[in-house]
Amino acid sequence: MGVNAQARVDLDRFWDTIQTSARIGVGRPGGLARLTLTDEDRQMRDQFVNWCKQAKLEVEVDELGSIFACRPGREPDLPPVLVGSHLDTQINGGRYDGIAGVLAGLELCRTLDELDQQTKRSIVVVNWTNEEGARFSPPMAASGGFVGRYERDWIYGLADDEGKTFGDELERIGYRGTRKATGHAVDAYFELHIEQGPLLHAENKQVGIVCGGYPSHGMRVGFAGQTAHTGPTPMDLRHNALVAAARWATAVDDIGWDFAVHDGKATAARLVAWPNKAGILSETSEAVCDVRHPDAITARVMAEKMRRAAFEAGARAGCEVTIHDEWQWGGDIFDDTLVDSLRKQAQRLDYDWRDIQSQAGHDAYFLAMKYPTAMVFTPCKNGITHNNHEHCEPHDFEPGLNILLHAVVERADR
Amino acid sequence: MGVNAQARVDLDRFWDTIQTSARIGVGRPGGLARLTLTDEDRQMRDQFVNWCKQAKLEVEVDELGSIFACRPGREPDLPPVLVGSHLDTQINGGRYDGIAGVLAGLELCRTLDELDQQTKRSIVVVNWTNEEGARFSPPMAASGGFVGRYERDWIYGLADDEGKTFGDELERIGYRGTRKATGHAVDAYFELHIEQGPLLHAENKQVGIVCGGYPSHGMRVGFAGQTAHTGPTPMDLRHNALVAAARWATAVDDIGWDFAVHDGKATAARLVAWPNKAGILSETSEAVCDVRHPDAITARVMAEKMRRAAFEAGARAGCEVTIHDEWQWGGDIFDDTLVDSLRKQAQRLDYDWRDIQSQAGHDAYFLAMKYPTAMVFTPCKNGITHNNHEHCEPHDFEPGLNILLHAVVERADR
Repeated sequence: MGVNAQARVDLDRFWDTIQTSARIGVGRPGGLARLTLTDEDRQMRDQFVNWCKQAKLEVEVDELGSIFACRPGREPDLPPVLVGSHLDTQINGGRYDGIAGVLAGLELCRTLDELDQQTKRSIVVVNWTNEEGARFSPPMAASGGFVGRYERDWIYGLADDEGKTFGDELERIGYRGTRKATGHAVDAYFELHIEQGPLLHAENKQVGIVCGGYPSHGMRVGFAGQTAHTGPTPMDLRHNALVAAARWATAVDDIGWDFAVHDGKATAARLVAWPNKAGILSETSEAVCDVRHPDAITARVMAEKMRRAAFEAGARAGCEVTIHDEWQWGGDIFDDTLVDSLRKQAQRLDYDWRDIQSQAGHDAYFLAMKYPTAMVFTPCKNGITHNNHEHCEPHDFEPGLNILLHAVVERADR
Repeated sequence: MGVNAQARVDLDRFWDTIQTSARIGVGRPGGLARLTLTDEDRQMRDQFVNWCKQAKLEVEVDELGSIFACRPGREPDLPPVLVGSHLDTQINGGRYDGIAGVLAGLELCRTLDELDQQTKRSIVVVNWTNEEGARFSPPMAASGGFVGRYERDWIYGLADDEGKTFGDELERIGYRGTRKATGHAVDAYFELHIEQGPLLHAENKQVGIVCGGYPSHGMRVGFAGQTAHTGPTPMDLRHNALVAAARWATAVDDIGWDFAVHDGKATAARLVAWPNKAGILSETSEAVCDVRHPDAITARVMAEKMRRAAFEAGARAGCEVTIHDEWQWGGDIFDDTLVDSLRKQAQRLDYDWRDIQSQAGHDAYFLAMKYPTAMVFTPCKNGITHNNHEHCEPHDFEPGLNILLHAVVERADR
């Protein structure tokens, strides 16, 4: 059983799917703007479902819009092996972030078809809805729902900047499926992803085996003040919610600099206010910030400083503070057996690989809360991502794809 | 010549017009949301023009949409006396801010009609377009255009948050007139306005004679950075435009606190960023801030600190800084003769009045750059304004209206 040790994916075929995807939801030159649950996302989903059906995969869509394309195993009642990532992008996103991971799963199934191989366990290729969080906060909403971290109806209620909800938009694009969002048996989850950092490229490594993720903590905080005239209102009678949010964003950036020497990072990613107009103090505001550090204890210290800074900023601006959401991910969360199996395949296939830690969030982080999980990183030029200049060459993917193929088949034959 | 010393406006009639206005562009309970060049603004303009025509005033609209309603004098070729303010409001505006001043001019003409009095010079009631700056920045755009401070076509190009331009929206609501925007002879400009501060109410004064305005300096600043992933990008390689704007807003607020002990104020009124989403660093941002102080030299010190803070914030966040607009107003800009004439009428009519400085910006500030100008302030409860809880009673207006009546007539008979 299992595939021949010489088996390899078809890199040209994989690259063709990437190029087709790169024409759907085109953004700035070379990039994509395919936000989740938009018409462009639907178009890409339709394309992906077509590909899956051509590959004789059985497609199901769950209540959160995530797509599960199953290649049945010989013992289809056993928990399957999942391989996935996301097809949505940032507003100024690249062509590979997330996309490569979903299409890697598809390519793997196509390769097995050509080899006429059936694994013992089923293999399921997954596209998770709203990984990016670029339209609906928080990110990785659907994979969070899959492991029971978020309630389905809470996710449905998430609203974008125009007030449209996740649930309504999911319905609108026709991807509100019937498969239950959560409670599924899963044997293992694999995710291939571009590194989104500069290490592999800088060190000329062909592939990274991800041991874990930078422990990360994020928060969405609301500030409530009071409108008033910008002129006559004395400083000590002001309740300018815009100032509260700006003070928090500034303080969070300071936290990042304080811990930068050991690779800590802090980000003010989003700030909105109302009315946010000349001449009037803002009544409400909201900001999204996060902190990351390779050391889990330090990351928690940073998170605690970030939280305290929100209340200090609110107090300083005379505004009430509400923590709307909090999330965290990362740490040494991946499964040792799976990580070892990836290392073993990298060794056996004779690629120049290294262990690596992820600095970005991934659906794999949520999956790892409940199921054995591991990730493969492929190089991307200078680590540029969330930018239309994100760049990869076909050969950047070849080692990762073949490692994934053999590790997934090995696991699925277990 | 002149009106009888016993002549008084009709307070009930004035109040009726205020109440009619309060039903157009209704906002939160008790307030208005009548942003400039919206359908609601058009509806109010139509109502105002109707009233003017009923009062036999000759209505002209200029290239910037400002409405001039003329009550011809016996010597119509002499430069006229203007009485005006604005009918637009903030998004959470009150019923009196600006509106009372325009309708005071109308009431004054109606009173002269009843008295069958014709002044020597014409009296022109004016509604200035976009005083608030709540939709198009900068505020007081049309009065700035009237005195030649801003170019007509530059004003036409101002864009709101949806990218709609002042020029297009003016055309759309049918108020792009043919009267030249600038270059008009004006004998004097009077403006009645609610105080928008707490002094008159707190001291139980019936009316304020405005000697000048708090010197004020405002800026609209853009920051240019680069999108990137919020995770892996090291702090020293970030160009997060949102952080640049937040740092500037925070620094400007600090300037306000530094000078608060002598009644200085600084405001971060507006902050927008793009993409402004979770997971991605922002490429561009823009913020509007201003500083005000009763002492002109100190106000300039604050303005210089505000300007320097913009460049420091940009440098700290690795972003380029562009000052898109700058504006200033205030100082001892009003005409001594006109101010004295208002004081004299207050004395003669036996009202309990005081001299006062304006802390808000007004169209009168621009008019004063070119023409003899003065203002009358009427009390508003606790100084609350730019808020739906802005509150005035009919009796709050009676002294201001009658002072205005007699001072305008005296000037127009000159």
